[in-house]
Amino acid sequence: MPKRPITPGPRDERGVLAARIIGAARDEFAEHGWAGTTLRAVARAADVDPALVYHYFGSKEGLLDAATNPPQRWLDNVAKVWSTPIEHLGTALVELLLASWADGEIGPTLRAILQTAAHEPATREKLRRVVEGSLMGVSQLGSDDRDRLVRSGLISSQMMGFALMRYVWKIEPIASMSVDEAIAAIAPNLQRYIDGDVSK
Amino acid sequence: MPKRPITPGPRDERGVLAARIIGAARDEFAEHGWAGTTLRAVARAADVDPALVYHYFGSKEGLLDAATNPPQRWLDNVAKVWSTPIEHLGTALVELLLASWADGEIGPTLRAILQTAAHEPATREKLRRVVEGSLMGVSQLGSDDRDRLVRSGLISSQMMGFALMRYVWKIEPIASMSVDEAIAAIAPNLQRYIDGDVSK
Repeated sequence: MPKRPITPGPRDERGVLAARIIGAARDEFAEHGWAGTTLRAVARAADVDPALVYHYFGSKEGLLDAATNPPQRWLDNVAKVWSTPIEHLGTALVELLLASWADGEIGPTLRAILQTAAHEPATREKLRRVVEGSLMGVSQLGSDDRDRLVRSGLISSQMMGFALMRYVWKIEPIASMSVDEAIAAIAPNLQRYIDGDVSK
Repeated sequence: MPKRPITPGPRDERGVLAARIIGAARDEFAEHGWAGTTLRAVARAADVDPALVYHYFGSKEGLLDAATNPPQRWLDNVAKVWSTPIEHLGTALVELLLASWADGEIGPTLRAILQTAAHEPATREKLRRVVEGSLMGVSQLGSDDRDRLVRSGLISSQMMGFALMRYVWKIEPIASMSVDEAIAAIAPNLQRYIDGDVSK
């Protein structure tokens, strides 16, 4: 059978190659940011021809979009957390955060989002949707729409700041805290943003 | 008088030009990150010859170092905050945060640090020193060295997450909250990290 490195192969081969390219793209975007990532470097990391990356994703923007789309099973995990009784939601959110970043697929996706959000408007929009949208699942949150968005934003500010310190900037001792330590430290503060008085 | 665009001029002219280059570099690094910034673009933004940027700062690393060194008057402001009675430190830190980011020189410096810390080891080291070092000024913080570093890291995680949401990612309604709203929302959480029980 002749080798066809550029034309996509059968359906399952395409899926395998696309997943490999997306995985490499997540790591490259997370490591080097938007401007520092080239399709050529992604192709090299995925061990495919650069033309195949163009063929599958069309452009660097298209590749970033694919690389920063959270996997469905993560969205399912997030939805599951909303079924937590509201008085335990602080702890559940810290557990979700730690489990998500420890995951070999979800962690790099979140990192790629955080690392490109500042420099690439489409990812910032995606980040905004994650923040504004995901916590809307908690219908008990807040007394009205604005209050809900304020609480959602405050929760996100703490979760993202902690994730950056621990996983991206790797600043000690935050980076090596145990799960129990992290829950004890962070969960009560999240809980105040969830159902405490945040306006005085 | 002949024009000498590359050789540095008299002492005061050098100071003026260097300050203009540093200002432009802060904005470029903050906007485009480490990989997305070129000395050529900085020179263009500062309206000087690229050779002058090399002459003054030696390399892109040298320029980043200069652009991310917090001004002395900021360090003085930070030191002043440590004289706040510990029970009011949460509020004082939020006020410091808001005033720092609103400042035309300090804000872009902090933004340049956050935007390049993930991709450039020297800036990450600087960020680590800011986090680990600056809060050491509060000798009352924590029961021992590790506890002090944990609290310092937790405080930083909340302050940096909030700063990113408000000033870098500009996510509403965090971005347009009033000063009083921000203090009411964030200060009690910082105060818990300062003198509350964070280990259970």
